[in-house]
Amino acid sequence: MELRLQTHKKEEFRDITQHIKKEVKIKNGFCIVYCPHTTAGITINEGADPDVRSDILNALDKITPEIHYAHMEGNSPAHIKASLMGSSATILIKDGQLRLGRWQKIFFVEFDGPRNRWIKVEFF
Amino acid sequence: MELRLQTHKKEEFRDITQHIKKEVKIKNGFCIVYCPHTTAGITINEGADPDVRSDILNALDKITPEIHYAHMEGNSPAHIKASLMGSSATILIKDGQLRLGRWQKIFFVEFDGPRNRWIKVEFF
Amino acid sequence: MELRLQTHKKEEFRDITQHIKKEVKIKNGFCIVYCPHTTAGITINEGADPDVRSDILNALDKITPEIHYAHMEGNSPAHIKASLMGSSATILIKDGQLRLGRWQKIFFVEFDGPRNRWIKVEFF
Repeated sequence: MELRLQTHKKEEFRDITQHIKKEVKIKNGFCIVYCPHTTAGITINEGADPDVRSDILNALDKITPEIHYAHMEGNSPAHIKASLMGSSATILIKDGQLRLGRWQKIFFVEFDGPRNRWIKVEFF
Repeated sequence: MELRLQTHKKEEFRDITQHIKKEVKIKNGFCIVYCPHTTAGITINEGADPDVRSDILNALDKITPEIHYAHMEGNSPAHIKASLMGSSATILIKDGQLRLGRWQKIFFVEFDGPRNRWIKVEFF
Repeated sequence: MELRLQTHKKEEFRDITQHIKKEVKIKNGFCIVYCPHTTAGITINEGADPDVRSDILNALDKITPEIHYAHMEGNSPAHIKASLMGSSATILIKDGQLRLGRWQKIFFVEFDGPRNRWIKVEFF
């Protein structure tokens, strides 16, 4: 399936867990969540406290160095952060349920918004 | 299968390769190693020299910036490191063997221990 | 299949998309691209402007701290960068095509070259 979303800020964590959860129609297997964009990524992390997400965004901002970037579009930091997070996540499924840990949520991470984005989700 | 382990330090690389290797019962396919925790991750790296692991832990500590973190639990650096390493690894299997590279081992990486942890491993 | 390549520089992005694309013989499923080396990784990012790749390499160089590394081989920064990028990528396949995003290419990233390298690619 394809999940479409509109991001609202330059950088943003979007919890997509519920959208994926309701599409699980297999009993056992796994799910691949794939981001087809090069300035956004997928990560799994804590979903309970929103401060964790803003802490991760702030830290990634500090981690990405302030050097001269050659890429004329000016969004090289977003490309770097995308590669640091990764373009996909794989989640196991058992008894028709995503086998996420207790505190885990699946996040689409925008690094160059606001934009119209989409994510591919397939079950095997 | 589920692999349970007790970590002993705040931060620690645990080589879980042997535990996974002995569970391989398929001929060809792949293995998903999944970490259900949000302050720990999975990575594949060199297993021969233990210094590589301590070098990676020390480097990740320097990489994670010393900024004000809002998350009250105080373990935001561990959440950030978890997303940098990733929550899972996928390893190919051929002729009943994990097709790891010569120097590769599969590591569970603790960033907020010591804790009781568990890992999910499935073969497809 | 196995893809062999010779890298020419210490650090280098190698676009391996075409090599993988021509091996797709299934209709629907996914592809696992696996790097069996511990000082190189796999990432998916923009392929249009080569500046993006050099910007990512330059940024990773700044991100990796200049601290004392214990590993005697002297290539600990390469091991760290390998874990930051990850050892594999998973790409969905639909109608016999890799479902990469418009700007995405699959890269083998060398961090300790020049070397003879190989990559494993399997379709499921």
